[in-house]
Amino acid sequence: MKEVYPFEEVKKEMKDIVGNKGAQLGEMSSIGIPVPPGFVITTRSCVNYLKRKKIPDSLKKEILSAMKELEKKNKRKFGGSEKPLLVSIRSGAPVSMPGMMDTILNLGLNDKTVKGLARETGNEWFAYDTYRRFIQMFGSIVLGIEEKNFDNILEKVKKGEKAKTDQEISVAGLKKVVKEYKKIASIPEEPEEQLFMAVEAVFKSWNNKRARNYRKYQGLPDDVGTAVVVQTMVFGNLDDKSGTGVAFTRNPATGKKELYGEFLLNAQGEDIVSGKRTPQPVAALKKVFPKIYDELAKTAEKLEKHYRNMQDMEFTIQHGKLYILQTRTGKRTATAAIKIAVDMVGEKLITKKEALMRVTPDDIEKALHPIINPEEKYEVIAKGLDASPGAASGKIVFDPERASVLGRKGEKVILIREETTPDDIHGITASQGVLTARGGITSHAAVVARGLGKPCVSGCEGLVIDEEKGTCRIGKYTFKEGDMLTIDGSSGEVIKGEVSLVPPKFTKETDKLLSWADEVRKLGVRANTDTVEGAKLARKEGAEGIGLCRTERMFNAPDRLPIVREMILAENKKERMKALEKLLPLQKNDFKEILRAMHPLPVTIRLLDIPLHEFLPSTEEISRELSYLKEFDAAVSLLQEIPGISKVLDPKLHVYLPSVEKFIDELTNEKYHVLSKKLIEEKTAMLKKVRSLEEVNPMLGHRGVRLGITYPEIYDMQIRALYEASAELIKEGLEVHPELMVPQVCTAQELKWVFKRVRKISREVEKNYGIKVPLKFGTMIEVVRACMRAGKLSEIAEFFSFGTNDLSQATFSFSREDAEKKFLPLYTQRGILQDNPFSIIDRKGVGRLMSIAIEWGRKTRPDLKVGVCGEQGGEPNSIHIFYNIGVDYVSCSPFRVPVARLAAAQATLEGKKEVI
Amino acid sequence: MKEVYPFEEVKKEMKDIVGNKGAQLGEMSSIGIPVPPGFVITTRSCVNYLKRKKIPDSLKKEILSAMKELEKKNKRKFGGSEKPLLVSIRSGAPVSMPGMMDTILNLGLNDKTVKGLARETGNEWFAYDTYRRFIQMFGSIVLGIEEKNFDNILEKVKKGEKAKTDQEISVAGLKKVVKEYKKIASIPEEPEEQLFMAVEAVFKSWNNKRARNYRKYQGLPDDVGTAVVVQTMVFGNLDDKSGTGVAFTRNPATGKKELYGEFLLNAQGEDIVSGKRTPQPVAALKKVFPKIYDELAKTAEKLEKHYRNMQDMEFTIQHGKLYILQTRTGKRTATAAIKIAVDMVGEKLITKKEALMRVTPDDIEKALHPIINPEEKYEVIAKGLDASPGAASGKIVFDPERASVLGRKGEKVILIREETTPDDIHGITASQGVLTARGGITSHAAVVARGLGKPCVSGCEGLVIDEEKGTCRIGKYTFKEGDMLTIDGSSGEVIKGEVSLVPPKFTKETDKLLSWADEVRKLGVRANTDTVEGAKLARKEGAEGIGLCRTERMFNAPDRLPIVREMILAENKKERMKALEKLLPLQKNDFKEILRAMHPLPVTIRLLDIPLHEFLPSTEEISRELSYLKEFDAAVSLLQEIPGISKVLDPKLHVYLPSVEKFIDELTNEKYHVLSKKLIEEKTAMLKKVRSLEEVNPMLGHRGVRLGITYPEIYDMQIRALYEASAELIKEGLEVHPELMVPQVCTAQELKWVFKRVRKISREVEKNYGIKVPLKFGTMIEVVRACMRAGKLSEIAEFFSFGTNDLSQATFSFSREDAEKKFLPLYTQRGILQDNPFSIIDRKGVGRLMSIAIEWGRKTRPDLKVGVCGEQGGEPNSIHIFYNIGVDYVSCSPFRVPVARLAAAQATLEGKKEVI
Repeated sequence: MKEVYPFEEVKKEMKDIVGNKGAQLGEMSSIGIPVPPGFVITTRSCVNYLKRKKIPDSLKKEILSAMKELEKKNKRKFGGSEKPLLVSIRSGAPVSMPGMMDTILNLGLNDKTVKGLARETGNEWFAYDTYRRFIQMFGSIVLGIEEKNFDNILEKVKKGEKAKTDQEISVAGLKKVVKEYKKIASIPEEPEEQLFMAVEAVFKSWNNKRARNYRKYQGLPDDVGTAVVVQTMVFGNLDDKSGTGVAFTRNPATGKKELYGEFLLNAQGEDIVSGKRTPQPVAALKKVFPKIYDELAKTAEKLEKHYRNMQDMEFTIQHGKLYILQTRTGKRTATAAIKIAVDMVGEKLITKKEALMRVTPDDIEKALHPIINPEEKYEVIAKGLDASPGAASGKIVFDPERASVLGRKGEKVILIREETTPDDIHGITASQGVLTARGGITSHAAVVARGLGKPCVSGCEGLVIDEEKGTCRIGKYTFKEGDMLTIDGSSGEVIKGEVSLVPPKFTKETDKLLSWADEVRKLGVRANTDTVEGAKLARKEGAEGIGLCRTERMFNAPDRLPIVREMILAENKKERMKALEKLLPLQKNDFKEILRAMHPLPVTIRLLDIPLHEFLPSTEEISRELSYLKEFDAAVSLLQEIPGISKVLDPKLHVYLPSVEKFIDELTNEKYHVLSKKLIEEKTAMLKKVRSLEEVNPMLGHRGVRLGITYPEIYDMQIRALYEASAELIKEGLEVHPELMVPQVCTAQELKWVFKRVRKISREVEKNYGIKVPLKFGTMIEVVRACMRAGKLSEIAEFFSFGTNDLSQATFSFSREDAEKKFLPLYTQRGILQDNPFSIIDRKGVGRLMSIAIEWGRKTRPDLKVGVCGEQGGEPNSIHIFYNIGVDYVSCSPFRVPVARLAAAQATLEGKKEVI
Repeated sequence: MKEVYPFEEVKKEMKDIVGNKGAQLGEMSSIGIPVPPGFVITTRSCVNYLKRKKIPDSLKKEILSAMKELEKKNKRKFGGSEKPLLVSIRSGAPVSMPGMMDTILNLGLNDKTVKGLARETGNEWFAYDTYRRFIQMFGSIVLGIEEKNFDNILEKVKKGEKAKTDQEISVAGLKKVVKEYKKIASIPEEPEEQLFMAVEAVFKSWNNKRARNYRKYQGLPDDVGTAVVVQTMVFGNLDDKSGTGVAFTRNPATGKKELYGEFLLNAQGEDIVSGKRTPQPVAALKKVFPKIYDELAKTAEKLEKHYRNMQDMEFTIQHGKLYILQTRTGKRTATAAIKIAVDMVGEKLITKKEALMRVTPDDIEKALHPIINPEEKYEVIAKGLDASPGAASGKIVFDPERASVLGRKGEKVILIREETTPDDIHGITASQGVLTARGGITSHAAVVARGLGKPCVSGCEGLVIDEEKGTCRIGKYTFKEGDMLTIDGSSGEVIKGEVSLVPPKFTKETDKLLSWADEVRKLGVRANTDTVEGAKLARKEGAEGIGLCRTERMFNAPDRLPIVREMILAENKKERMKALEKLLPLQKNDFKEILRAMHPLPVTIRLLDIPLHEFLPSTEEISRELSYLKEFDAAVSLLQEIPGISKVLDPKLHVYLPSVEKFIDELTNEKYHVLSKKLIEEKTAMLKKVRSLEEVNPMLGHRGVRLGITYPEIYDMQIRALYEASAELIKEGLEVHPELMVPQVCTAQELKWVFKRVRKISREVEKNYGIKVPLKFGTMIEVVRACMRAGKLSEIAEFFSFGTNDLSQATFSFSREDAEKKFLPLYTQRGILQDNPFSIIDRKGVGRLMSIAIEWGRKTRPDLKVGVCGEQGGEPNSIHIFYNIGVDYVSCSPFRVPVARLAAAQATLEGKKEVI
């Protein structure tokens, strides 16, 4: 099989074997983009190499023959003493992994060819500077010699010549550097051997630590290998008419349509990527080389039209001529992704559907990244570049390892670095945001942060790190690890301490994209909330109703809890009814407010679900109070028994209490005694009640409809409150759609039992108000048995709403709280489970069960409405699964509603699949 | 539709509309049994009546026309002043409900006809005695007048005449009684009106409390209604050549083939049933009326041949002529049921299959009712009739209500009554056994106790109850409520105090029946046990292997627990391995012994299932010990600090400790201090560990294979122990069939993970021993997700064993412990659930889930072996369901194995049904 392809022979369909970069170069060549000639060695060769650790002779032969062709095209000679051919050797995997693998430039130089280069360019300084760069790169990457050894030599020579910058070194100095370099790095003189060794190094770099980490984080496969691109060198560092740069066809941070990027005059690409020199914005090129700027802008336009997506180009100017070294789909922030997708629809580059598929639900979530509360007052202590938008607060950390450890523990940290490197990825991932002293808007930190959707301020000149002391100065302040700091990547501001953050407003493009999602999707999106504020937010975020309103949260409000406790502690039904009568108007008002806020959208009210003991203090709490009370009581008794006690008390007490006598008199008054006795009695009764309510497995306990059947008067009160609330709103002229949902149902009898009461109460209320209430009656499906009885349940229930949290617990026999603490991490780590089933719905188990329940439920009632109100209802992978098994709507936290809207649209666009 | 049928027109197929009694009478007429003529009013009429509360005119017309026919047959006139026709009115439901509904005798008497009866019989006394009986019966049953009002009148007249018994009252006295009776009971003079009112009363009695209770207890439907049998009266109390009796065609207590029963001369049936007079055994009839005895014996034979079952006949002799009043399938004890079924096969009356279907699994269980330990010495304080076999001990209770309350609480009680009535049923049901002072072997107490399989001693003359004081004398002792008493219904003995009871040996008939069951059944029966003793018992009871051997019970043995705790408290894998190495030989020996005891039958070993904290003491326990230790330590410190402490110690101490000085010296020795410090440290560590292992929902916790994956070395040890045990036994020449079962599996990955280790260890062991171990690898199915993944699991598992306890908990989301305490009783009481799903498998939910799992499992592996090892595996209803859904074997407690064998045979005979 052919293993080496010149650019002209590469087709874009060959991406898997020539890699992304190779495919791009081939494609660019074919549409007339000025690309330096070159060829690609396939990913197959890499995979083979990694198996055998040896480049086979056949491959060497192919490479040499391709070199011959290259010599012809360039009219140059590889290893020649006149017009020597120099090449770059780069990695290029099928999926781009920027900066993760190795690159070697200027290959082909040796003691002989360097002279030819000097002669040809008439620039000996350039030739020897290029040579020493080559040796350094080859030495560190191919031969594994530490960079600092080279740096030491360079510094020594510079010192000797009193040169401040590299540019100031003399030609003799450079020659000396080369000589010294070659002492520590034995570079083969033979260019062909250099070539093979470099190719081998790139192959190997596929498996270096940072590449492996990157693939793990991105979920990329490990067995694909990288292709190697061998390309004619062009020199941005040839002279002052040369330079190199990186340009995006649109702004990757904001999505704005503009040529965006940066360049360095008289420099090679590595100088930009490494962040060692701070470059100029690409717009500055307009002044320096207006023609080249125009050519670059036209090329950008051409590339974008061709690829129908925003491009990230590397370019070099060699003595006034523009070369494009590579192009790829540009990484962008979530906000940019949305704007670009929407704009491109406007520009007729892509369709609405493509736009919807191009933005990920993750982008929507990231676009919701918090901003600093506009009402907040704060002190800006430094400014850097607005490298990746959004604001974040956290504790300062200087070490990526440390950031990773703390981040995994759930701590919020801000990583501060001189500049970041690919080795820091795990630290960036674990941080809330990144602040760097050096590097531009396309520096490593900036690129990675944008990819991860994390705020980044780069090139902050006010930041000085003292690694030894483990501190940093920012502006006039000194900070140490653990101090709080806030960064705003949208403004580049660095702020002392923590400031309050708020969710941002959607951009108009986001609103537009989501409105397209709404046009497309066939899966409804509702919100889970139980407050009026939540309901209002839900509407704002585009929810089509409330899918789960938990009534127990209303019971927990400070003005309700005493009444709820009164109800629980009641000794008999009569006392319980008294408490419930007090609750009825409050509960009715809750329902009215929420129904009013949502009208005319549906609101699903779930009857009381949680076990009663959750409304009472814990045994520990009561025991503690009880022992205080007893001590107090004993003290009062003691005081009563000792006449004239006030006189023997510590005289110091008189300082605080002008009249100790009076205080004692007061304290020993019988009423305190009576009071403490009464309290002790009450607390003792409560303790007894709490003990009687204790359960071995509360998750499988006395809750939901089981409670409703035990104490029918509680559900009666709730049902009546909902009917009366609805009736009163209808009287006001509002259209309301209340839905009543019974939790924890496992038999049809339970549902029938509640339904009978609903019918009785509805008749009473409807008669009283002279109004019909259009209430829907349904059941939560969160018990496995309910799935098995779905066909029977849907005889009564007009809708099902899957409680996927509890259903997952029951299906796995996992107690979420225990499992996540004890064995779930090990399970996902050992691959026993792919995902935590409480985050992403378990397709094969819980999904299958749901699918059966839906099928059986609809057999009895074809128009059965089916929703999901568990946590997974707002998670994109799960939303796809729910759509596929026939769910009608998902319901999630109001904040996740926009994410769910897009995910629902994407699921609809992909069409239903047989997933189980 | 016809609503009244004369006996001659009744076919036995008409049972549903003419009732059991009516059908029997019709059938008896047709085979030439001497039955007094009569007719039946259908159950339909009853159901209609209960709806409308009125007898329609059409029915009245039919009844009167049937009476006309009856007058012709008897050549008598209903309400005639000469030869008046008297009839009995009895209830007769499609399923016999003895004594539950009302009966009226002698109907047709009034002031006019009584004179005709006196003239005809020449016995004025008899006529008026019959008349006063009729008034009393009609008055109490139809008119609802309390019996004691009649009794008071009778007693007053008796007192006035100084008569000791009813028989001694004069004719004038009887006439006075009638006159007084009629003052309090206004009996209609018109016989037709009497008849309609009586029929109405019988209809109504279908819904009286005791009938409803009986139906509830027996699981009979409430909407069927009773038929009414109207039959010509014959008089057992006419003269001394008359009498009445009850006879069984075989002994209902033992099953022996003999005419068994009792009779009273010159008496009516009610005198026997009520237990007011103690009758003679039926054998005595041989002497008094040998011809009639022969006729009765022949009739018995005829009836048994006809019905192919043991019969319970009521007969009356009227002036030397035998009448059979009714016959029905005789109730019998479990032992009798088994013997009769097996004997009848021998007599070629029925087939083996019929015999198998005729005995209930309940009978097998009852036949296992305990007997008094033959080695026990005890004092017999009285003797009564051996009315229902078996022995029982319990606390004395005199009141059925009280017995019911205590019984439901789980207390063992013996109900002591003068005699029992149908109103006492709930008390008998709740007791361990019944002791009565009066009544024979067919008295109410005896019949009911035999039906329920409870021991009963009746007619115990040594028993005198003092209701006022709430005490009783038995022989020379006085007892009060709560005192312990033992009765032996097989010998009639009453024993003071509690004696130890043992399970009985099976009769040879039981063994035979079970061997037939084994021939027939296609469902295997195994036992759950984890001891050698259990294994031996299991074999004896007919188990075909061990279906569940729980290894954790072995870990709990006193010699293991310290090592197990060492393993749990180990700080690292190395320490844990050390403890496991100590456990390995012990565990191996466990397995060897059990495999040896069962060879060559299969033994299913389940890997460790329960969470580790169950092997550790509770936090409370450790905290307590810890505080003792700290106190001790403080005391030792104190003693060390006070020199010469021994001198100030309480001088009394010297009495107990001859040398206090030495004791103190000893105690204050540093080594104790060191020891207590060390213990405190250990306990503190243990407390910490226990706290770290605590779970919110232990039922859904870190157990089973989850534990195995977390600490692989534990399962490794167990797997190795099983392989080595098997290999060593095979070397000895034994055939063993070990089966390894993984608990709590919910994903195929878990099973694969264990399977890999099994393969590795098996290769090692098989290589070491040079032997192949024929081990089967399977999984417990007790997590719902495992059911959903059955098709994947059976790729690896060679067998499934359903853990129906945990599976039911997960399917219902019920924590059994909590549910049975908090809401399950209410659920069954309110009809939300028919049965406790932990006793009888829930067909519609859990059964359906199992059925899906079996189907999917067998799709992948057609020869997948499927067992059930949950508690429901030994319960007959559940066994039928398991057989129907394709289970291969059930496994239950060794004691329940015989029950399961019969239930399995019956399920097989009934054939598979679509049950879900």
